[in-house]
Amino acid sequence: MSSVPGPSREPPRYLSKAEAEAIEKELLEDYRFGRQQLIEMWGHACAVAVTKAFPLPSLPRKQPTVLVVCGPAQNGAIGLVCARHLRVFDYEPTIFYPKRSLDPLYRDFTTQCEKMDIPFLSYLPTEVQLINDAYNAVVDAVLGAEAELGEGRGPCAGILATLKHVRIPIVSLDVPSGWDVEAGSSGGISPDVLVSLMAPKQCARRFLGRQHFVAGRFVPYDVQKKFELNPPDYPGTECVVALRAPQ
Amino acid sequence: MSSVPGPSREPPRYLSKAEAEAIEKELLEDYRFGRQQLIEMWGHACAVAVTKAFPLPSLPRKQPTVLVVCGPAQNGAIGLVCARHLRVFDYEPTIFYPKRSLDPLYRDFTTQCEKMDIPFLSYLPTEVQLINDAYNAVVDAVLGAEAELGEGRGPCAGILATLKHVRIPIVSLDVPSGWDVEAGSSGGISPDVLVSLMAPKQCARRFLGRQHFVAGRFVPYDVQKKFELNPPDYPGTECVVALRAPQ
Repeated sequence: MSSVPGPSREPPRYLSKAEAEAIEKELLEDYRFGRQQLIEMWGHACAVAVTKAFPLPSLPRKQPTVLVVCGPAQNGAIGLVCARHLRVFDYEPTIFYPKRSLDPLYRDFTTQCEKMDIPFLSYLPTEVQLINDAYNAVVDAVLGAEAELGEGRGPCAGILATLKHVRIPIVSLDVPSGWDVEAGSSGGISPDVLVSLMAPKQCARRFLGRQHFVAGRFVPYDVQKKFELNPPDYPGTECVVALRAPQ
Repeated sequence: MSSVPGPSREPPRYLSKAEAEAIEKELLEDYRFGRQQLIEMWGHACAVAVTKAFPLPSLPRKQPTVLVVCGPAQNGAIGLVCARHLRVFDYEPTIFYPKRSLDPLYRDFTTQCEKMDIPFLSYLPTEVQLINDAYNAVVDAVLGAEAELGEGRGPCAGILATLKHVRIPIVSLDVPSGWDVEAGSSGGISPDVLVSLMAPKQCARRFLGRQHFVAGRFVPYDVQKKFELNPPDYPGTECVVALRAPQ
């Protein structure tokens, strides 16, 4: 297990939006990874990251509740899988998924959560105190790297306005919702934890939160090499690794 | 993390072939799990089990080689995913996959391995000493619970005859190849390690090897309850758990 980093180890590279898209395209087209397979791996890794950032015994509330807010596209589907694995890890996730995709793949992920009795909220309380009181943390799976700038001003604007004011910690998947993939935030949400999928995006340089995880161990060596990802060392069989230790 | 088993904990139930098929049907049809998703989860769990049974520092050979023998059906596809994750965990898997399925799903899993430079053997040496000398262990992903009795006498007969004589340890996925799902073995292969998928099958009662893992944490609670699986406690975020400790 290559767990001792060598002295010459380069820091991981932070990807532009175009690079992130090129890598995902290569995984899907050349390596023949399936979307179902990638979303399952990412969602599982995100749930593992949540357990590392918020271990069950450390939670401030009596019930190990977590609110998972899912957008209509791929990031939201990853949130659904994350919620399912959190349930398996003995957390109590609740999902808010206001704009459900008609994509059969995403519908299947939704059914898995519904059939596992994970509650779905019909609306998000605008009174943030209700959220602060009910949950230990929020998983932000609203918008991902594929979001166009300005999408946060569309139907997701209300959600982002609420998330901006919650005081419980936020875990953002890949790109904090409303942030530009490259430029980062300007007055948007401030996640405590960031889980970068495959490799960090450029906006992660502006991340000022407590912990930054990368979930990209499955990325084939040749792809890591070609895009000079310089991935961190993953210990043992871990699927995520912390770039920034708890502060 | 519910890691302390209560005194009243029932041992896991050993499934008949019909029960195993009924559970898989329920996961696919009612819960809308996808085959790609299940095979990815199982293959990953099998690779994790291999790392537990044969940690890298414990391997007798200089190179961390593992031979993964894959059959044409679902068990073989799980073997392919297992090999891919073993590569990611810094092992050196080699695949023998003589009868390739035309199923596009299995072909995609094959492409992932090929593009990750995992070598494929064009034939299996009949001289078992060559296998004993080259590899630390063999993963038997030839036939699974779906195999009909007598299938081991078909095109897989030559492989099973070879595996029966190798002296390096064998890891069987779900059902040791050539065994009846319920009755077990009669003079077939004798795996050292068994990885039961979802829950142990009845044949696992006849398993006399060193370690028995179960990889079924993802199975929804209601399914566990309905089929009275009495799953073991999985510590932390582990996807496999040993029913029988190393001996």
